[in-house]
Amino acid sequence: MSGNSFGKILTLKTYGESHGKAIGGIIEGCPEGLKLNIEKIQKELNRRKPGQSNIVTQRKEDDKVYFLSGILDGVTTGTPIGFSIYNRNYKNKDYNHIYKVYRPSHADYVYEKKYGIRDYRGGGRTSARETATRVVAGAIAKQLVKGIKITAFVSSVGDIHLNKPYYKLNFDCMEETAVRCPDRGVAEKMIDIIKTIRKEGDTIGGIISCVIQGVPVGLGEPIFNKLHADLGKAMLSINAVKGFEYGSGFSSGQMLGSSHNDIFNADETTKTNFSGGIQGGLSNGMDIYFRVVFKPIATIMRKQFSIDTKGKITNFFGRGRHDPCVVPRAVPIVEAMTALVIADHWLLNKIII
Amino acid sequence: MSGNSFGKILTLKTYGESHGKAIGGIIEGCPEGLKLNIEKIQKELNRRKPGQSNIVTQRKEDDKVYFLSGILDGVTTGTPIGFSIYNRNYKNKDYNHIYKVYRPSHADYVYEKKYGIRDYRGGGRTSARETATRVVAGAIAKQLVKGIKITAFVSSVGDIHLNKPYYKLNFDCMEETAVRCPDRGVAEKMIDIIKTIRKEGDTIGGIISCVIQGVPVGLGEPIFNKLHADLGKAMLSINAVKGFEYGSGFSSGQMLGSSHNDIFNADETTKTNFSGGIQGGLSNGMDIYFRVVFKPIATIMRKQFSIDTKGKITNFFGRGRHDPCVVPRAVPIVEAMTALVIADHWLLNKIII
Amino acid sequence: MSGNSFGKILTLKTYGESHGKAIGGIIEGCPEGLKLNIEKIQKELNRRKPGQSNIVTQRKEDDKVYFLSGILDGVTTGTPIGFSIYNRNYKNKDYNHIYKVYRPSHADYVYEKKYGIRDYRGGGRTSARETATRVVAGAIAKQLVKGIKITAFVSSVGDIHLNKPYYKLNFDCMEETAVRCPDRGVAEKMIDIIKTIRKEGDTIGGIISCVIQGVPVGLGEPIFNKLHADLGKAMLSINAVKGFEYGSGFSSGQMLGSSHNDIFNADETTKTNFSGGIQGGLSNGMDIYFRVVFKPIATIMRKQFSIDTKGKITNFFGRGRHDPCVVPRAVPIVEAMTALVIADHWLLNKIII
Amino acid sequence: MSGNSFGKILTLKTYGESHGKAIGGIIEGCPEGLKLNIEKIQKELNRRKPGQSNIVTQRKEDDKVYFLSGILDGVTTGTPIGFSIYNRNYKNKDYNHIYKVYRPSHADYVYEKKYGIRDYRGGGRTSARETATRVVAGAIAKQLVKGIKITAFVSSVGDIHLNKPYYKLNFDCMEETAVRCPDRGVAEKMIDIIKTIRKEGDTIGGIISCVIQGVPVGLGEPIFNKLHADLGKAMLSINAVKGFEYGSGFSSGQMLGSSHNDIFNADETTKTNFSGGIQGGLSNGMDIYFRVVFKPIATIMRKQFSIDTKGKITNFFGRGRHDPCVVPRAVPIVEAMTALVIADHWLLNKIII
Repeated sequence: MSGNSFGKILTLKTYGESHGKAIGGIIEGCPEGLKLNIEKIQKELNRRKPGQSNIVTQRKEDDKVYFLSGILDGVTTGTPIGFSIYNRNYKNKDYNHIYKVYRPSHADYVYEKKYGIRDYRGGGRTSARETATRVVAGAIAKQLVKGIKITAFVSSVGDIHLNKPYYKLNFDCMEETAVRCPDRGVAEKMIDIIKTIRKEGDTIGGIISCVIQGVPVGLGEPIFNKLHADLGKAMLSINAVKGFEYGSGFSSGQMLGSSHNDIFNADETTKTNFSGGIQGGLSNGMDIYFRVVFKPIATIMRKQFSIDTKGKITNFFGRGRHDPCVVPRAVPIVEAMTALVIADHWLLNKIII
Repeated sequence: MSGNSFGKILTLKTYGESHGKAIGGIIEGCPEGLKLNIEKIQKELNRRKPGQSNIVTQRKEDDKVYFLSGILDGVTTGTPIGFSIYNRNYKNKDYNHIYKVYRPSHADYVYEKKYGIRDYRGGGRTSARETATRVVAGAIAKQLVKGIKITAFVSSVGDIHLNKPYYKLNFDCMEETAVRCPDRGVAEKMIDIIKTIRKEGDTIGGIISCVIQGVPVGLGEPIFNKLHADLGKAMLSINAVKGFEYGSGFSSGQMLGSSHNDIFNADETTKTNFSGGIQGGLSNGMDIYFRVVFKPIATIMRKQFSIDTKGKITNFFGRGRHDPCVVPRAVPIVEAMTALVIADHWLLNKIII
Repeated sequence: MSGNSFGKILTLKTYGESHGKAIGGIIEGCPEGLKLNIEKIQKELNRRKPGQSNIVTQRKEDDKVYFLSGILDGVTTGTPIGFSIYNRNYKNKDYNHIYKVYRPSHADYVYEKKYGIRDYRGGGRTSARETATRVVAGAIAKQLVKGIKITAFVSSVGDIHLNKPYYKLNFDCMEETAVRCPDRGVAEKMIDIIKTIRKEGDTIGGIISCVIQGVPVGLGEPIFNKLHADLGKAMLSINAVKGFEYGSGFSSGQMLGSSHNDIFNADETTKTNFSGGIQGGLSNGMDIYFRVVFKPIATIMRKQFSIDTKGKITNFFGRGRHDPCVVPRAVPIVEAMTALVIADHWLLNKIII
Repeated sequence: MSGNSFGKILTLKTYGESHGKAIGGIIEGCPEGLKLNIEKIQKELNRRKPGQSNIVTQRKEDDKVYFLSGILDGVTTGTPIGFSIYNRNYKNKDYNHIYKVYRPSHADYVYEKKYGIRDYRGGGRTSARETATRVVAGAIAKQLVKGIKITAFVSSVGDIHLNKPYYKLNFDCMEETAVRCPDRGVAEKMIDIIKTIRKEGDTIGGIISCVIQGVPVGLGEPIFNKLHADLGKAMLSINAVKGFEYGSGFSSGQMLGSSHNDIFNADETTKTNFSGGIQGGLSNGMDIYFRVVFKPIATIMRKQFSIDTKGKITNFFGRGRHDPCVVPRAVPIVEAMTALVIADHWLLNKIII
């Protein structure tokens, strides 16, 4: 009932605070007999890990996942997969300054009002640290839906935009740029702007695009669990996300039906793909693509006014090691949540007489 | 598991095809002791009803709701509220032409592939007719969360935009314009463009904005059921919706943290509201606002190429009585889904020791 | 969250009060492409119907089911199956005497305390009338799991017991006896005792046994949704049920492991079947059998003391037309709930890579 | 969807195999602000622990619980409570003899058929070791529902029965007898029979009774989630349980309505309590009581015939350290599952306008 579970057949339930003993989760509903590549799972975690480049936070966390059950000799047994990531290397003192202050545009205030108690250590449950557990589960989901390829990439940082359509991009070079933009020229400009922003103690927003290729026809469950509705919820559940659009997205509001309709070819593909691979909430076999916007993260290294827990106006200074721009590290999170949605609907779709 | 239910505590499950005997649903979890204003519920249905003005479809449906249980002498008893809306006045012959053809950008193709069987009569379950059941449940939800005011309105039709911020608008005049835009001047332009488009046998997209006022602090359930994630899913589940953004939305991707952060006043309100009334997935007491984009609907009164169920290219002509622009009639649907999400989280938030 | 839904993949949600306009439900998750025999469904309802013999209540209800959606030309389409049974033929006056009195061992008192409001007309939601909706759904579930045979029968009425093991019985003659006991001699005695009890204005308890044959190996979901746990819950949810046991049941408490263990044959069947067809919560391919006990129903045609809603001691006289013994009419309900559990687990078991 | 979760508001999801790295779980929905007594939780685990007396298995497991999240300075924060119990002290070699053999009346055969893969080490997920996680969650649930007292005790071992009604027993002495029977004389006889049976390499069944006192009126959710239906499912989900009855239970099948009805006193209590504290599925404020039967466990220290995974008949000898009778150690498990059901319904009952 509270919201720490995701999925219907393939489910992830997570626990853990940023600076507690561990974060972790239970993956249920992963079918038996799946040979898991554990190294690949850890590799996905490394893509999300702090300290991986000089444009992300320099916090030290090794983010190593330990699997505790559900796997025998590297193969899933059909029983729940329990896992933990221990919080080894943190500095408790970094957070004493926020014990009695509500940081602007953080969740401090709302948590304290909702629960009457708040784990002030590093944001507690509200920290994006919990997304590491999503990456673990998503990495397993990716291995489950073998023929389906999920690729997220950074398409905007501030006003630097990648304007090419996705099918003209070379995804292979993406991981070679620290910002995870699959166009070296644009990537350079993004990295420059992030470095500038960081020097100013500020943060900046951005957009991640995602493409799903090889999806069979018919994934999605009418009428409330349309495939794009579940994808949208998955994305909006990620920290700092402010919007989601798929296919023609917000531009469709200005279009005419005569130009927006995707005309069929004889082979059941469509000549255009404004539908974004989904019609009536069900995948139609064309590429699915969508965009997710991330706000500039709230922790800036500057003086801001705020209030303390008694409503007194106070000066607040951000401290610690934080990301100037969240999108480079959010790419594997977007992919993970996408994989969870797709794998879940792929399993749902298999229930037939 | 299939997707015909919505909500966690206050739930709606629906049934019904466009041209079957009836559509209807069961509302569960509505607390006992609520005095219902049945007339108000019917009034919401009338806002969604075909034929209400000269810019919407002229189909004849009376859309009268019959309550079958859960209400005694006008008061809810805590037991499930069953209801039906009978499909009295339809023309079966209107749809014979689509029996063997997949309409472009409709769900015909994907349903036939997923289920192997498809109710071709008026779109069957894929028709937006099912949204009438959502309006019934939403109207009850509105009566449940008494102090909360939910207002949706049309903010764009094609390239006609309402550019004023919501707090400068006079919502009282909204229902007086056929297009449900609370600015008479802009509304006139929108109506003009819709009439023009209709004469051309075409359709056009648009945007609906929604504001929720009077929400208490703390609605939303971390971490997957963030309030905006559930709102986003609710909106994306509505037919023809292609995107959702809340607060600063897609514009946040270009903003800096130093200007995006909402600084607290001493009374715990914030000076700005880029957060859109939600922080960390929980309502913070400020106004919640979001935007939803609707594509131009796919049925146009023009010749299009398409394919039949055997993959043969064929000419296809739209027929029947359809909306040239969906947003005027979608306003009560957006409000209904919003009310369901808010009422559900309002009830969830009441579970404390 | 409230309890008007049953099942996980194949679900039934119901609504309706005994003396409201209708009872009904929505069946979701029934796979597409199932050719339904509607006549057979009505026939199951007729087995539960009042007035079918001279040992059951003589109330007049025709219990005709109307399907509203989800079926096209007699075949399921994969969309929700909505249905209604209208409450045509009731006598409102029968119930005025209980408006302000709590009937002994009924749910009047607890409903009024829980909800503060209570539909006093014929018991409202607490009446066993709602079980008619279960019979509809169960009849569809039976048609879904074609190779599986579910047979319930009356094995005890008061101290008249059917002592033969189920595999020595001739189920074909069961429906020929008004009491649904597949042994004519024992059935006669049961009918005699029911008639005697009725003349005395009293009621009597009984036991229903049920056998499920042809179940494939592996139905059931560890560890909380063991097959027998879900069967037990299904049975205990039926009005008047006080206990459930499967396989060796309560007698196993006195047995030794050396005699209770079911030794395998080379063909993977077992020599004995104390396990009752379920091991570790999963079906093992042997016959599943269980027993359900029903208390004597609370409405007796005699004077009893009771209290009114103000706590005043009062005389209470039962009125109306009620069953002297519930088990003959409960047989199709037990079968229906069994079919729902088995079909649900049968579908769950099909989710594999 | 698979069955590793329990509860609706207060939920437990578990993972872990008998001889994997750890077992554990996530408790969600425990309200914030609950001061936890961790020592009491460990004490409950110790009641279930192997080696606690000379009539239970002498396996060595320290069963220490580690909490990983959701608790700050000893108080719940409203976020998920993750916990682990590590499997330190096991002997892998004990189980090599069952790698290719299906043990009679165990779950080996059905797991292998269902999943195609089976964790043969100590029974894997089918081992009752997982019940330790239930005891952890139940111990927290007990602390949540402060005014409610839950007492389970052994009422039968084989044909030694405790025949006194529960309200004549002195529960205080229960823990002083190794068998957890609150009558020293009967306890002695039970211990004697268990010792005898063990010497013979055999096992024996038994019955646990449970009483819940101080339950407020109105717990339970009509119509499928009746309080006794959820209690029944909870009990039937425990390993080795074959039956459940509450209140008058199976004896009600032989009773008349005139003697079974519980007549009200003026203070809304009832003169008798055949209802077992539940009417119409809702608690009525009287004591709730029920009985649960456990079969003799299947692992006996004797030669038995069985089959191997190729269907060949083989001799099978039980090894390792097992319980001759499961009921003494099952008492805290019955209490834990009872506490989970009661706490869940207690929270559900708090959702009102």
